[in-house]
Amino acid sequence: MKLASLKNGRRDGALHVVDRTLTRAVPVPAYPTLQAALDDWAQAEPVLADISAKLNGGQWAGIAFDPAACLSPLPRAFQWADGSAYVNHVALVRKARGAELPASFWTDPLMYQGGSDAFLAPHDPIPLKDPQWGCDFEAEIAVVTDDVALGSDVSVAATRIRLLMLVNDVSLRGLIPDELAKGFGFFQSKPASSFSPVAVTPDELDAAWDGKRLAGALRSTLNGQLFGCPDAATDMTFDFPTLIAHAAKTRALGAGTIIGSGTVSNRGPDGGPGTWVDEGGRGYSCIAERRMVEQIATGKAVTPFLAKGDRVRIEMLDAKGASIFGAIEQVAQ
Amino acid sequence: MKLASLKNGRRDGALHVVDRTLTRAVPVPAYPTLQAALDDWAQAEPVLADISAKLNGGQWAGIAFDPAACLSPLPRAFQWADGSAYVNHVALVRKARGAELPASFWTDPLMYQGGSDAFLAPHDPIPLKDPQWGCDFEAEIAVVTDDVALGSDVSVAATRIRLLMLVNDVSLRGLIPDELAKGFGFFQSKPASSFSPVAVTPDELDAAWDGKRLAGALRSTLNGQLFGCPDAATDMTFDFPTLIAHAAKTRALGAGTIIGSGTVSNRGPDGGPGTWVDEGGRGYSCIAERRMVEQIATGKAVTPFLAKGDRVRIEMLDAKGASIFGAIEQVAQ
Repeated sequence: MKLASLKNGRRDGALHVVDRTLTRAVPVPAYPTLQAALDDWAQAEPVLADISAKLNGGQWAGIAFDPAACLSPLPRAFQWADGSAYVNHVALVRKARGAELPASFWTDPLMYQGGSDAFLAPHDPIPLKDPQWGCDFEAEIAVVTDDVALGSDVSVAATRIRLLMLVNDVSLRGLIPDELAKGFGFFQSKPASSFSPVAVTPDELDAAWDGKRLAGALRSTLNGQLFGCPDAATDMTFDFPTLIAHAAKTRALGAGTIIGSGTVSNRGPDGGPGTWVDEGGRGYSCIAERRMVEQIATGKAVTPFLAKGDRVRIEMLDAKGASIFGAIEQVAQ
Repeated sequence: MKLASLKNGRRDGALHVVDRTLTRAVPVPAYPTLQAALDDWAQAEPVLADISAKLNGGQWAGIAFDPAACLSPLPRAFQWADGSAYVNHVALVRKARGAELPASFWTDPLMYQGGSDAFLAPHDPIPLKDPQWGCDFEAEIAVVTDDVALGSDVSVAATRIRLLMLVNDVSLRGLIPDELAKGFGFFQSKPASSFSPVAVTPDELDAAWDGKRLAGALRSTLNGQLFGCPDAATDMTFDFPTLIAHAAKTRALGAGTIIGSGTVSNRGPDGGPGTWVDEGGRGYSCIAERRMVEQIATGKAVTPFLAKGDRVRIEMLDAKGASIFGAIEQVAQ
């Protein structure tokens, strides 16, 4: 099933079941918010599945579904932990600044704790406060977990994934170097993220989801031009169960925890950096990656970060060309 | 007023108003959870204040208050951001490993985003999974904010503080060096924290709270022996409004955001490291700080980290010797 949180003037929005084609939606009186459903998933799932069956079967008409009326599926969450599973992306960052990639990066996931108190809605503007901050988008996949016990291994972690969605992990590139140099990780450099209008259960994804990775091109466009379409199952060094087990190594994870993949990134055909879409490549899921490739190739990054009025769209289509999660569509302003 | 979340089998507990002496408590039907009250603080505050007046005035008897029946005041929160406001503590860490303290550390706060999806209760055991992880306590002060707009300055931030409480920011010292070396900050090295049984509004603190810092000895005991009693208003380089404004520089903060002070730490009389309680000093708010002082003085840290059965107690007493927040009291196991 597909789930959305519609704006209703409250912080957590109103949980709705959305049909497969993203055209109709029905509220869920028994579980007014998605967090309430996740808090009690074993009870909630059959209730939601029943509504979904009636909506998709045409028994219930529902209301017209409008992605612009959506908050992020979890408008706020108790945990948002973002991995960096596409080590190719990390390797590029390092290469662009002439630093070695530690060998451990291929075996030990990077993960940071992100702010989760007030996510942007999928069609909210991206606030641009200071152009020097170098605002960027990052297209990612995320999963939402049920409770995960402290010390759960990868096989247990795999059984705790309840939902998938897309993310725009907004990043302020100009603030990152000084912040990371302080040693405490990201904080000011990672402002509010946004998520796709709809979160979906794994069974909606058919063969695209193998229980570990989501296959499919993650399409990012900037001002209507394709910027990247890497396959999310390719070059994902750490799959989602591995990321969840990493997060749960020293603490239990509460239901509704969001675990992100990090910027989706594919290597080029020669195993090196991916190539630009105009050159037949799969492009990039963030401006920084394109800039790094420019830096490596020519010694100079030229693609600018987001400016006022720039429009970012992030979406994944199924085999028939239909939008799975709805589109994140945000204007920088 | 003083507020607690009593265990009721639900994730967020049941909000109660507690009397000043921490002996009686009354539930709050209009706001079943503390987060619900914080979400609507302007409406909730007079309701809570009325209950508090009746309870403290003897009009309402309430039920007996048992700190052991408490969850943390926010059993889970949408944001937990912990500063490192006592730069003396950071300077000691650096000195113990022979590293320079960057000058910017005196003007630019350190802050990390902590996990907030499932806090320990104030009397919960501290899970010890692997002795090599070097489990430590950290006694801190925290404030809970209302909504804080993106870019709020220090003077605005000061008006958004709603509650204060104590924290045990449990830390796994053995995991910190490798984790920080990866560059993404703390994650596995910061498992679930716990908070004092009661959170209090600033007006309960009288002159001890000047709107920026909380004066008073933060008492930590380990197995019944005093380990530290530094004054929380002394040597606090960054006050709470400064920490909040730092957190809000690039993002709005949602109501119920918890901002921590970092380990409370006082310098010695000579301006150097604080001295041990047996030597007449104010001691330390974590084992690591004592170990750093040992390292600096003798070349060898000898005080062990927490072992099974060790009992940590963190508390602050008022001028008359009464417990303000109730005690965090946890056994490592």
